[in-house]
Amino acid sequence: MKNEKRAGGRRGADPSSGSSRLTGRGRMRRNVPVALAERSYEVEIGQDWLETIGRRIVDRVGSDRFALVTVPPVARRHAPILTRGLKARGAHVRRIVVPDGDATKNLTELGKLYDRFLDAGMDRQSAVISLGGGVVGDLGGFAAATFLRGISFVQVPTTVLAMVDASIGGKTGVNLPRGKNLVGAFHQPRGVYLDVATLRSLPPRQRSAGMAELIKAAAIWDAGFFDWLEPRIEAFLRLDPKVVIPALERGCGIKAEIVARDEREGGLRRLLNFGHTLAHAIEAHANFRGILHGEAVAIGMVFAAERSEALGFAPAGTRSRLESVLERAGLPTRPPSRPRRAYLSAIAVDKKKEGSRIHFVVSRGIGRAQTALLAPREILPPGWKA
Amino acid sequence: MKNEKRAGGRRGADPSSGSSRLTGRGRMRRNVPVALAERSYEVEIGQDWLETIGRRIVDRVGSDRFALVTVPPVARRHAPILTRGLKARGAHVRRIVVPDGDATKNLTELGKLYDRFLDAGMDRQSAVISLGGGVVGDLGGFAAATFLRGISFVQVPTTVLAMVDASIGGKTGVNLPRGKNLVGAFHQPRGVYLDVATLRSLPPRQRSAGMAELIKAAAIWDAGFFDWLEPRIEAFLRLDPKVVIPALERGCGIKAEIVARDEREGGLRRLLNFGHTLAHAIEAHANFRGILHGEAVAIGMVFAAERSEALGFAPAGTRSRLESVLERAGLPTRPPSRPRRAYLSAIAVDKKKEGSRIHFVVSRGIGRAQTALLAPREILPPGWKA
Repeated sequence: MKNEKRAGGRRGADPSSGSSRLTGRGRMRRNVPVALAERSYEVEIGQDWLETIGRRIVDRVGSDRFALVTVPPVARRHAPILTRGLKARGAHVRRIVVPDGDATKNLTELGKLYDRFLDAGMDRQSAVISLGGGVVGDLGGFAAATFLRGISFVQVPTTVLAMVDASIGGKTGVNLPRGKNLVGAFHQPRGVYLDVATLRSLPPRQRSAGMAELIKAAAIWDAGFFDWLEPRIEAFLRLDPKVVIPALERGCGIKAEIVARDEREGGLRRLLNFGHTLAHAIEAHANFRGILHGEAVAIGMVFAAERSEALGFAPAGTRSRLESVLERAGLPTRPPSRPRRAYLSAIAVDKKKEGSRIHFVVSRGIGRAQTALLAPREILPPGWKA
Repeated sequence: MKNEKRAGGRRGADPSSGSSRLTGRGRMRRNVPVALAERSYEVEIGQDWLETIGRRIVDRVGSDRFALVTVPPVARRHAPILTRGLKARGAHVRRIVVPDGDATKNLTELGKLYDRFLDAGMDRQSAVISLGGGVVGDLGGFAAATFLRGISFVQVPTTVLAMVDASIGGKTGVNLPRGKNLVGAFHQPRGVYLDVATLRSLPPRQRSAGMAELIKAAAIWDAGFFDWLEPRIEAFLRLDPKVVIPALERGCGIKAEIVARDEREGGLRRLLNFGHTLAHAIEAHANFRGILHGEAVAIGMVFAAERSEALGFAPAGTRSRLESVLERAGLPTRPPSRPRRAYLSAIAVDKKKEGSRIHFVVSRGIGRAQTALLAPREILPPGWKA
């Protein structure tokens, strides 16, 4: 076992005391900068402002032709409002609706997307907007990264998961039949726009799944934020804006801090994979169906915390505190029952392996994490049972 | 018509007087730096040194697992020698043979390549070597750019075309049914290694096609090099090393200078597209079969020079001098007979268009070029006949 870069334990300010500005209608807006030199951008957070977002995107990107990549329910509810804003600034908008679900993130759908871009007359000055969850973000983002060797890209996430995780950091890509996200590119968006009102139409199960990544951000990086969030889980699930907006601001802020220090996943950024080794194995076995990514991550985090305690990285009680918060958020915490060897073979094709060892993120206690290079049998010891 | 950045007319030193160093066996080696900050690398040129190249690649990349992407004739003749060098440094090598020809550059072959990478146990520390012409360079390079969001990549070009053009600059990608290179990424190689001895097995038609890009480099950038090359066309086609090595050195040097000043094709790099607007249209009509890229470029350059004279950019005689050199190099200079409207519609999907105008590269006389934003009907005026 070889220890690597330590990190974590930064103290965050109380999120609810964060700076905000009031808009004309007295609504709260928060901006989170993502500092990436000439690729810097901001995550702008607000409520009931989709049409304004449309206008801001045109002003920001300076393009007059957009492909709006989205999924059916979002296309119906939210796309018309966003489109109104884009058109108010004179832009051409081609709506492209792809099937919902992680199974859509494949090379065949990618090929169809390129065709639709050509149909829409897109050129190097055109831009792609992903409106929806992580699937359209990853698929639309990768199409933008590679169409004509790269065109502009904007994210308008409408799920908690995409808001705090998928839309920040520039990771785009598709799955292969043999594993998740095995193909992709780093392609930073020009801007990320959050309208928390879109979360109202999100099924409760999806809200819970998104909370897994928010809890993850607190668990690996900011014990103070974890303390703040712990008693507010139920208020977040009810979408109380006084909790949701500051929580998303801090969640995005943590992701932005980590990505700004390590844009291309050299080390620090690996911490964001806390819980993901087992999560990817669970998802691969489920063939990306029947289980949500956040649910798999919740299970993976509890597993990682348990292993961290067993391997001496985390103090006793870390796993139980994390598990309790995740359970209150409505998330599963135990892996589907399968033979150990099935999990072993799935983590061996995980792209984070290096030689025969795997970069596994261990907890150092709530608010702190590090990566450790572990052999698969250290991660899943003989006798381990799902 | 709107004029853009001017360029060209740099005086090159006589290539045959360039600095060289003798190796242990008294052979000539030349190094051309490609200056791209932290992505800098060198083009190393030599003769009969494929096994040494294998060892140098391992030392340079520091990986112990390679996918060697190549095409059938090259796999037979050259891959075993390169592999010997790689294995002498303890590397695992998986040879992956793809069909030859531009039709191989598609999303289906790309998907198969990813599968082969997984079969070979490739991870983020593994690297891809493209051994062959531009097709394996573009396809293997794009696979390397996107597998696990990007792994190391090395080029060992074995055609004149790939040596002077495709292997420098980091452009990778595949074709879509509706056009060439519509999908891709910029992904700089870690190194480019030329063994001019591999050109001996190149069919004469391929040697000629490669010369088109070499002549292009001289025609857009270096009148002195054009003067030097003009009387040495036949010696190059015979592969006289006293001509081939300095000519490749200068050809690579021109490409490297342009790419170093404009890595992401903001403006200057567009000059390298001299002749390519019509070339891409010709290739699209031929469905990428029956005509070599260099042949299409030769035709496209004569066309561009002719249009440059007609539009007042180039002095009279530019077209005829260029045409004469290309003919002596064994290249076609007249476009296949097709209706003007067929050419018009093909150039309208070209990815270099901006709004309704197209970035067309015009000659300003031998050794100088610039881009001009032209409407399709200025490029192909009414009454124009192929």
